[in-house]
Amino acid sequence: MSKKCIGIDIGGTTVKLGIFEEDGTLMEKWEIPTRKENGGEKILGDIAEALNEKLTEKQISQEEVIGVGMGLPGPVLPDGYVEVCVNLGWKDMNPEKELSALLGGMKVRSGNDANVAALGEMWQGGGKGFQDIVMVTLGTGVGGGVILDGKIIAGRHGLGGEIGHIHVRDGEAEYCNCGGQGCLEQIASATGIAREARRAMAASDKPSVLRRFGDQVTAKDVLDAAKAGDEMAAEVTETAARYLGLALSHVALTVDPECFVIGGGVSKAGTFLTDLVDRYYKYYSPISENKGTISLAKLGNDAGIYGAAKLILD
Amino acid sequence: MSKKCIGIDIGGTTVKLGIFEEDGTLMEKWEIPTRKENGGEKILGDIAEALNEKLTEKQISQEEVIGVGMGLPGPVLPDGYVEVCVNLGWKDMNPEKELSALLGGMKVRSGNDANVAALGEMWQGGGKGFQDIVMVTLGTGVGGGVILDGKIIAGRHGLGGEIGHIHVRDGEAEYCNCGGQGCLEQIASATGIAREARRAMAASDKPSVLRRFGDQVTAKDVLDAAKAGDEMAAEVTETAARYLGLALSHVALTVDPECFVIGGGVSKAGTFLTDLVDRYYKYYSPISENKGTISLAKLGNDAGIYGAAKLILD
Repeated sequence: MSKKCIGIDIGGTTVKLGIFEEDGTLMEKWEIPTRKENGGEKILGDIAEALNEKLTEKQISQEEVIGVGMGLPGPVLPDGYVEVCVNLGWKDMNPEKELSALLGGMKVRSGNDANVAALGEMWQGGGKGFQDIVMVTLGTGVGGGVILDGKIIAGRHGLGGEIGHIHVRDGEAEYCNCGGQGCLEQIASATGIAREARRAMAASDKPSVLRRFGDQVTAKDVLDAAKAGDEMAAEVTETAARYLGLALSHVALTVDPECFVIGGGVSKAGTFLTDLVDRYYKYYSPISENKGTISLAKLGNDAGIYGAAKLILD
Repeated sequence: MSKKCIGIDIGGTTVKLGIFEEDGTLMEKWEIPTRKENGGEKILGDIAEALNEKLTEKQISQEEVIGVGMGLPGPVLPDGYVEVCVNLGWKDMNPEKELSALLGGMKVRSGNDANVAALGEMWQGGGKGFQDIVMVTLGTGVGGGVILDGKIIAGRHGLGGEIGHIHVRDGEAEYCNCGGQGCLEQIASATGIAREARRAMAASDKPSVLRRFGDQVTAKDVLDAAKAGDEMAAEVTETAARYLGLALSHVALTVDPECFVIGGGVSKAGTFLTDLVDRYYKYYSPISENKGTISLAKLGNDAGIYGAAKLILD
């Protein structure tokens, strides 16, 4: 009988779990709430319970399971140690060891969620067939994951793939969460695109369909309006695409991947967005036409469980 | 008897050769001219002859030699194939295979010279003791080499570590060799620093000791004058340091090395320069204080032969 592997993606609101075949086929996925109270002390116990129940229900024995991979919303040291994980309330613990103990010694591995999602997209998503990919997730923030030779480049201090905090624009007055001014995340995240749209509306009297949304304008409103030909929305979209393309050129000239995979809510704009990004990416790295291509992510919110499961196979 | 390894650094003017102990001790080094005529057809023959002579002279048998590593001034594909190497006149050849044949089947490995120099600095220079380093060479151009887990990241298309062509400044009117406008190389190379100094002199009437050099001003003149307190020279130096610090922050947020090693002629300005670079590097990556440090290269022009020798040990 073929072996199974488990992928778990722990977020601030829900924990996603998936049971996979070794070949990457998702057999079953489900979610449980993330109980963050009391320093998140119940999270791992809840996961162990949910997992044991499901394995029993599916008549999968412990021996059939190769192990469990976890994506965590924060930095993870190479030995699995977590200094602090703000979104879960965790401090100074080793969730790999703790979950393994709760699962009767099962093999457990963990990684940062953005890196793990990149691994998932490499395994079964937009980067399938490649070994060197860089994923950029355009969501509330901008996350990144660098995979070289099939392995996550977490970095020596957990900063590997922190592409959202690459400085791309001078003169920004507001501060990013990281303390910087002019980070990619401030311009190309969903939050950033919405802010740029509010600024564009405030800066002129130019008519735009965006005005009907006022301060409630979202990145989706902007991208939809840009697609429909709205000039102001097109400019805001172009700004985001320009700085994303610039950051991708930096990354290409550092690690030169086979492929960039663009995911997250903003990437739902599809090739309309990535074609624009590609134009600026090429403009900022004219040194060679022979370089990593830009693709869309394919796994959506499941990238994390795919990548977590892949962690345990490596 | 301990085994030996050979490191060869092929430049456009001279070929540097070195015989090393396995522990990294340089036993002997010498140079021969690079004969580039007729598509560089004599270069490998000259190397084989010079090497055989030296091994005979030193009474080192072929069996004692583990192999030969080569640094080449251009991109090298993973199988050693060289599409084109402008500086040597080479086209469509595999110098690894050719040199190996000339040396009776000895093991030969090759890599791009900037990457190989980075490997040398990791092995016995400014990055000694580390496994993840990024080297930046500030010479006529700006070269780069990324080493992760002790291995060169050449990239899938040979663009790994092309840090000199990271776009750092908008509004540059001149073109870089790569076709870009605003590359790091245009500002922080020796050539770039000299050009910025000429521009600064032309842009104002401000007194400066640089004026005595006129259009012949060099990067060394600028750095010396900056150290001595000349205001205009200090501004030019600060601009170079700022954009180098910016590019290092991009690299740190991508691969997060343990250490950056700064080499090349411009780096002779020492900690006066790297302290300035460090200030901007930190300014542009406030996300964490815990990140790769900045060191000076230690091997000078020998980094290439050290790294080439190390290639063959890996």
